[in-house]
Amino acid sequence: MSTQPWFTLGWGEEGVLLLDQRALPEREEVLTCRSLEEVARAIEELVVRGAPAIGCTAALGVALAARVSRALGPAAFAAALDQAHERLAATRPTAINLFWALDRMAARRAEAAARGDASEAIAAALLAEALAIVEEDGEICRRLGHAGVELVPDAARILTHCNAGALATSAYGTALGVVRAAFEKGRAPTVLADETRPFLQGARLTAWELQRDGIPVTVITDNMAAHLMQRGEVDLIIVGADRIAANGDVANKIGTYGLAVLARAHALPFYVAAPCSTIDLATANGADIPIEERGRDEVAHFGERPVLPDGVPVRHPAFDVTPAEYVTALVTERGVLHQPGQESIAALLRGHRG
Amino acid sequence: MSTQPWFTLGWGEEGVLLLDQRALPEREEVLTCRSLEEVARAIEELVVRGAPAIGCTAALGVALAARVSRALGPAAFAAALDQAHERLAATRPTAINLFWALDRMAARRAEAAARGDASEAIAAALLAEALAIVEEDGEICRRLGHAGVELVPDAARILTHCNAGALATSAYGTALGVVRAAFEKGRAPTVLADETRPFLQGARLTAWELQRDGIPVTVITDNMAAHLMQRGEVDLIIVGADRIAANGDVANKIGTYGLAVLARAHALPFYVAAPCSTIDLATANGADIPIEERGRDEVAHFGERPVLPDGVPVRHPAFDVTPAEYVTALVTERGVLHQPGQESIAALLRGHRG
Repeated sequence: MSTQPWFTLGWGEEGVLLLDQRALPEREEVLTCRSLEEVARAIEELVVRGAPAIGCTAALGVALAARVSRALGPAAFAAALDQAHERLAATRPTAINLFWALDRMAARRAEAAARGDASEAIAAALLAEALAIVEEDGEICRRLGHAGVELVPDAARILTHCNAGALATSAYGTALGVVRAAFEKGRAPTVLADETRPFLQGARLTAWELQRDGIPVTVITDNMAAHLMQRGEVDLIIVGADRIAANGDVANKIGTYGLAVLARAHALPFYVAAPCSTIDLATANGADIPIEERGRDEVAHFGERPVLPDGVPVRHPAFDVTPAEYVTALVTERGVLHQPGQESIAALLRGHRG
Repeated sequence: MSTQPWFTLGWGEEGVLLLDQRALPEREEVLTCRSLEEVARAIEELVVRGAPAIGCTAALGVALAARVSRALGPAAFAAALDQAHERLAATRPTAINLFWALDRMAARRAEAAARGDASEAIAAALLAEALAIVEEDGEICRRLGHAGVELVPDAARILTHCNAGALATSAYGTALGVVRAAFEKGRAPTVLADETRPFLQGARLTAWELQRDGIPVTVITDNMAAHLMQRGEVDLIIVGADRIAANGDVANKIGTYGLAVLARAHALPFYVAAPCSTIDLATANGADIPIEERGRDEVAHFGERPVLPDGVPVRHPAFDVTPAEYVTALVTERGVLHQPGQESIAALLRGHRG
């Protein structure tokens, strides 16, 4: 499916295979998760991150739990699948694609169970569904990327935050999918990547994958973005999303909201690129999106080196919420939605577009 | 002069003594600079940083050059002092206090030379002048801090950027001087410190010195500031300055301008605290302030660990410029200037206030 020259995530003989994103850009290591618990921890510990990639990984995790438990009796098999769903749902609270993928896996399981399938057949159905989710995710990103090209002028200087790339999806990426599509069409975009503290997804992951594809990328610390906007060195901002509420409010990596405010102050367009599976009609607005608070270590240390005196506390919200009014356009696999809001988003999901 | 429980900078039998700020918060090491070149490199390599502290260090550097050269003949002594001035002036371009201190040392030298003083006496006069600059800097910070207390409500939640503290001055600090004065008056301020990439002055230095003084401090990554403002968790922002132009535009650590824009968007006051020696009437406005561009390493590595793929470029402007219109008030040792501008700044320097 993917033509990218590296492996992000997938299924292998021994379990779920994940490129260990914690080791990038220094080492390209693939981790094998042989149990449901290993998959859950890999999501929690950021071996894999990015809303669509978390969804794909959770689906593969359910398939793995089914494979491992398929020789148990029907009741124990059902209990193992219930427990897998519950454990994976508890890994990270913000990215809605996690719950979307788990719901899709649960629906497939219910369908197979309603047919009276045996455990072995249910496990096979769940693996097929997980692989379909992975496959579709890359296709959706490609459609999304090509839909977004209309927003990218020639030689655009594009600022992005975190990694909404091939490493955050099964392939191609969302925000970076738009960049890739513009690059493929010869529009010669250049990218400014916020390093994205504390986990440095921009420096470590976005720079790595764009360099691999030959797309020019320059890394800045997060606090340089305003200065470059002020000096006229940015043409547009494009980011991914972890959850989009029914009214269009966007939860994404911490720092996104600040960029949106800065974009408005400098009259620059602020675009969000995400598959429809990131839109959650059950969340009315941004205030209802749970924001994950992570621990002290990622902020207080870098590798082995402490950057803070012992005993000094930190804050560590992993995401923030950008009100819909700041979003110039939402790019999805069904097309571009200018000034997205409650009604246009609902219409998009009903399929009135694209 | 200082009651602070640590040593920042000063004069010793063997030369200029500097707390090595690169090693904080892990190790408290004092570096002895025995030559002019060692002082110049200490400024360039950020052993010492912060506009007033750079000024103090440069003055001590001139005194050291005079001490080391005082046994030379008059012509060689004069040449050594010229060279010291030139070398120190080339260390860092943005902080005006460097040039202010060098000019003051040059004036004292010219005065002594005009009296016909011998090299030994000129060297003694220069040491006295440097020690006076160091001493006055701490006193100025105390006056500035107490002048700024009127801006700090009880239990204020104060966001600051970089380190405009005792470590950026000879003692007490500028922005943190205001915090200290409010704390001493029982106003119970709490501080949110931006970690301040790439050199982490906020995490490493601001957190360290406030913890030493028992002032509550919480560290955040730079990209969290907007989120906390949005949630109503910040009451005011106060920062230092590296140079203030005649019209009130403020050059300060990269990231300051973004905070100013965010403060306005959230209707929060944005204060700048700096001694009058930071105001440069010879610089008409911010566009005329030279912005130092530093190298790739501070952005691309952390300690020994690379955080970027080899070959990916970075940008590294060390400062940015905040237009005067964003500054709610300027706090100096002569008092508080609300909505500072060309005329009020000129009047302040003419001594019509305070």
